[in-house]
Amino acid sequence: MSSNDLMSGVLAPVVTPFAPDLTPDAQRYAKHCRWLQDQNCGLAVFGTNSEANSLSVGERMQLLDMLIDNGLDPKRMMPGTGCCSIVDSVTLTQHALAHGVGGVLMLPPFYYKDVSDEGLYRTFAEIIERVGDDGLRIYLYHFPQMSQVPLGIELVGRLREAFPGIVVGMKDSSGDRGNLEAVLSAFPGFGYFAGNETLLLANMRAGGVGCISATANVNPKAIDGLFQNWQADNADSLQSSLNETRAAVQQFPLVPALKKIISHYAADGEWNRLRPPLVELAEADGNKLIAELDAIGFEMQGIRG
Amino acid sequence: MSSNDLMSGVLAPVVTPFAPDLTPDAQRYAKHCRWLQDQNCGLAVFGTNSEANSLSVGERMQLLDMLIDNGLDPKRMMPGTGCCSIVDSVTLTQHALAHGVGGVLMLPPFYYKDVSDEGLYRTFAEIIERVGDDGLRIYLYHFPQMSQVPLGIELVGRLREAFPGIVVGMKDSSGDRGNLEAVLSAFPGFGYFAGNETLLLANMRAGGVGCISATANVNPKAIDGLFQNWQADNADSLQSSLNETRAAVQQFPLVPALKKIISHYAADGEWNRLRPPLVELAEADGNKLIAELDAIGFEMQGIRG
Repeated sequence: MSSNDLMSGVLAPVVTPFAPDLTPDAQRYAKHCRWLQDQNCGLAVFGTNSEANSLSVGERMQLLDMLIDNGLDPKRMMPGTGCCSIVDSVTLTQHALAHGVGGVLMLPPFYYKDVSDEGLYRTFAEIIERVGDDGLRIYLYHFPQMSQVPLGIELVGRLREAFPGIVVGMKDSSGDRGNLEAVLSAFPGFGYFAGNETLLLANMRAGGVGCISATANVNPKAIDGLFQNWQADNADSLQSSLNETRAAVQQFPLVPALKKIISHYAADGEWNRLRPPLVELAEADGNKLIAELDAIGFEMQGIRG
Repeated sequence: MSSNDLMSGVLAPVVTPFAPDLTPDAQRYAKHCRWLQDQNCGLAVFGTNSEANSLSVGERMQLLDMLIDNGLDPKRMMPGTGCCSIVDSVTLTQHALAHGVGGVLMLPPFYYKDVSDEGLYRTFAEIIERVGDDGLRIYLYHFPQMSQVPLGIELVGRLREAFPGIVVGMKDSSGDRGNLEAVLSAFPGFGYFAGNETLLLANMRAGGVGCISATANVNPKAIDGLFQNWQADNADSLQSSLNETRAAVQQFPLVPALKKIISHYAADGEWNRLRPPLVELAEADGNKLIAELDAIGFEMQGIRG
């Protein structure tokens, strides 16, 4: 795999629909992935917004198998494979690689807190060694607010140096523009994805490669529009428009908000179901969210039927 | 199972030894469990200090099978079975129940933060319903500093009321004496284990049932001595003595410290190995720890050979 194959653009951490018995709803899942792919949106399946950490290892592998069987393009897929246990991370990473995915998005182990950089380094090194495949492309997943285990710039640099061509990028969900600029300044050419689209333009201007954003589940075309046109004269205006939609959505917990939006615009109540510990939006909140989106002319073309 | 069967006393969250290839070392594990049981210490296998969240579901089940095959008493076992995914929690809980364990210690799902009590309630309710066994005895595991997902007293009360005879107790590792007194005052007879032995005497006086403490891995006999004699005239003095050992140990990260202690007193360097992201103590720290323990006359009788 040459460096030309490195991933870029807009990816969605694909939300996972559940049947009434809380098993993943494979049919709706494949359909949503198809809708995203048709709008040039990559599939960061099994991310935070996918409720991936509420799925078992077996469920994740079955869902990925199913997407491949349904003809979705593995090269635009970046499955989340970082678990608390090295054993699970290796299992998921090997499985994803066997399907030819473009890369994997790897959380650090997130149960133990205040762990050392040495411990985190050993974790990633052990996974890489066990996977033992030169085709592996790891995007480190920095999301300190959720994981409570930050991946600092020194650790990122050490991993990048030890495993060039394997540790090729990161998703930064910290929302910290200072970190964005520090990382890209320290590591030019690093495959840096902003964790939401409000930093997409800043990221592209600093040398980043795109964004992986919850909101891409519902607003993929517009976000990709900015990615394609970030050097255009109207880029700041495109960014402002994205920010407006994002602001309406992120007033509420993200996963319930996304499921409410899909449920509403697809006219499919089955989408409005989460696996515990997450819960659906209260009805009043859901109505407020939809009313605000309607008011700014938001739509999801082609999501029905 | 009658209420007479409810668990009490001192339990150790058993530390898990690893071979050079980082697989669990079954032989040393069984031996350590036998040493603990011989000193009347129950086995809270697969807890925080067991590095359980660095193990896969399969590894945990194999280790438990092995302990049972080795004749250790399931009635004094309280395996940790709470995972991020309901599916995994159900798998581990059913497996443990099939072995006749005295109870299970259940973490809430710990990836998603700021989750609602409703979401946590649904998690435990779904697990209980899926397990579907009246013999289930759940001890809720409250450890906000590590899990970052507290189990507040309202939630505990709601679960206890909805599932009487099943949600029978908790382990509180918050170290918050106010919570200890509030819980036992609100729910007399609740099977409340203090999360470390420094609160053992206070817990027994407030109506609790014992403690589940990291340090029980190395100091089980003395801790059980206070449990057996908490109403004796010298109970405060016994508590002070336990606190002295605890203070020496908890200057350092607990799991590395425990492994260093066992490694030293068992004269077995193989014990001094952790699975990433945890790492062994630096040599100087380890030497300081052992010197302080030696200075207060600490010993681990029968740990060698």
